[in-house]
Amino acid sequence: MSVYTAIEHDELERFLATFPVGKLVAYQGISAGIENTNYFVNTTERSLVLTIFESLEASDVPFFLDLMAHLAEHGVPCPHPVPDGGGQYLHRIKGKPAALVNCLPGSSIDQPDADDCAAVGRELARLHLAGQSFTRQRPNSRGPRWWRDTARVVMPYLTAEDAELLRAELYHQSLFRLNDLPRGIIHGDLFRDNALFDTEGVLTGIIDFYYACHDVLLFDVAVTINDWCSDSTGELDPSLASALLHAYSNERPFTAIERGAWTVLLRSAALRFWLSRLYDQNFPRPGPMTHIKDPTVFKRVLLARIEAGNSLRDLLP
Amino acid sequence: MSVYTAIEHDELERFLATFPVGKLVAYQGISAGIENTNYFVNTTERSLVLTIFESLEASDVPFFLDLMAHLAEHGVPCPHPVPDGGGQYLHRIKGKPAALVNCLPGSSIDQPDADDCAAVGRELARLHLAGQSFTRQRPNSRGPRWWRDTARVVMPYLTAEDAELLRAELYHQSLFRLNDLPRGIIHGDLFRDNALFDTEGVLTGIIDFYYACHDVLLFDVAVTINDWCSDSTGELDPSLASALLHAYSNERPFTAIERGAWTVLLRSAALRFWLSRLYDQNFPRPGPMTHIKDPTVFKRVLLARIEAGNSLRDLLP
Repeated sequence: MSVYTAIEHDELERFLATFPVGKLVAYQGISAGIENTNYFVNTTERSLVLTIFESLEASDVPFFLDLMAHLAEHGVPCPHPVPDGGGQYLHRIKGKPAALVNCLPGSSIDQPDADDCAAVGRELARLHLAGQSFTRQRPNSRGPRWWRDTARVVMPYLTAEDAELLRAELYHQSLFRLNDLPRGIIHGDLFRDNALFDTEGVLTGIIDFYYACHDVLLFDVAVTINDWCSDSTGELDPSLASALLHAYSNERPFTAIERGAWTVLLRSAALRFWLSRLYDQNFPRPGPMTHIKDPTVFKRVLLARIEAGNSLRDLLP
Repeated sequence: MSVYTAIEHDELERFLATFPVGKLVAYQGISAGIENTNYFVNTTERSLVLTIFESLEASDVPFFLDLMAHLAEHGVPCPHPVPDGGGQYLHRIKGKPAALVNCLPGSSIDQPDADDCAAVGRELARLHLAGQSFTRQRPNSRGPRWWRDTARVVMPYLTAEDAELLRAELYHQSLFRLNDLPRGIIHGDLFRDNALFDTEGVLTGIIDFYYACHDVLLFDVAVTINDWCSDSTGELDPSLASALLHAYSNERPFTAIERGAWTVLLRSAALRFWLSRLYDQNFPRPGPMTHIKDPTVFKRVLLARIEAGNSLRDLLP
């Protein structure tokens, strides 16, 4: 939504005064991001990012801030919220929830190579392991119940072919019970634009934890691989996928039961994003957000995963 | 929020053309309501209400519309969504979810007498009974987890006295496990402004089901009685409360386990609305909504329930 909430210099100075971060030097709106307003904030001491939460409920925010702090303290390269003098992460600016986090160097890459995919696989596994000691729970708001409710809502706007594909996939997914798969904190949205790399190709940051929740770890791997390792037809690039999965399994080896569920989860991860993009296309959110992402990207991914079928099993180390 | 989404005459005519309801004669915005935009719509055949959902996700709406249809078809006086020619309740206008429901006669009353309270008690019990055959589930988004998250978020803005009361009440509530109480569909927000009466004092409508969910039935009774039967100091009026509870128990008698939990639930129902009003006061929603409800009303109710303690047990027939 680029910058939705405008902040004046004086207001930001007053806001920063409650944090031990030095004095405001300069600030600038960041145009990326759909759900939040973000500013780069430079002080006499630090580089920071101010996030103003435009669509999250304030009562949901502490979970995400606590999680980022926990993961950063356990070695995951992610922003750490900056506490004010009283130890609080969550603040309020113009009546909206807001937080200050440290600014990570690097930028996202659009066309990752095998090394980049390996870096993401490794850090995702480390994130999953570090998440095991995070004690707060949050259910996945984009889980199977949401798939069904959302499918019903977008169904009238679909072509007959798409409606049939959607119905068939929901039915296919309903045949599987995934209760025994390893679970824990997942990122939920580790797309290419949510990872930062420095100029030497080192992964310096995982950002945007606002879909993080407690769910099946392998689902998170499937979400990640569907974005990082698909070509424009939706098919998986075997060398990229293999690099990501090997690096992941070096940190957290896959279990036998995960092997059995892998192809189902690749499809469910495609379904989840096909559905959310169909939804956003048909019920665009109010406000200056203009960037509606194309649902057909994930329709193609879903079709490619269905087509590839059990041949994808061999990818998992 | 009064009327947030303006609709032109031509647009409404086109919208109505998909429903078997005759031709548009007149329409007018309704100024009540916080979450939605509502219009009275008169056609050549019917009186209707058009609701445009401003803050609910479209994927959440079908639950509420199906529930209203189910309850209306089981004799509860509530609006029934009007299906279009294809049988769909949920529609879209200006990219927002929207539905047409039948318009119920009557208006809300500010100062109910014992007969009015009896009518509400009776219809609430009937709603609970009719809800038992509704098969879809929806957890309470304003349950104990939300109390804790929200308390944490509003805590920095409270006086020391209020912070202490809030902490103490959360602790008190945490001592009780309410798993064995009768559960089912609850309205969740049956305040005086959500019930309509005709000029003869007959309860003609229960409206605004957008906090309905699956939860403890007796919690719903406590929410209702805290609003309908409290005086300005927060204390329960015994004759009003008795009228409501007797009428309820004639339809659905209270169980022994409910008797044991009653005083805890009266307090939790006060806590829930104290918290949501504190939250709205400190994090007001964007948009033209201006009507922030006073949190202290429910602080007084909570204090009065704590003060009254076990003496409230005898109210339950």
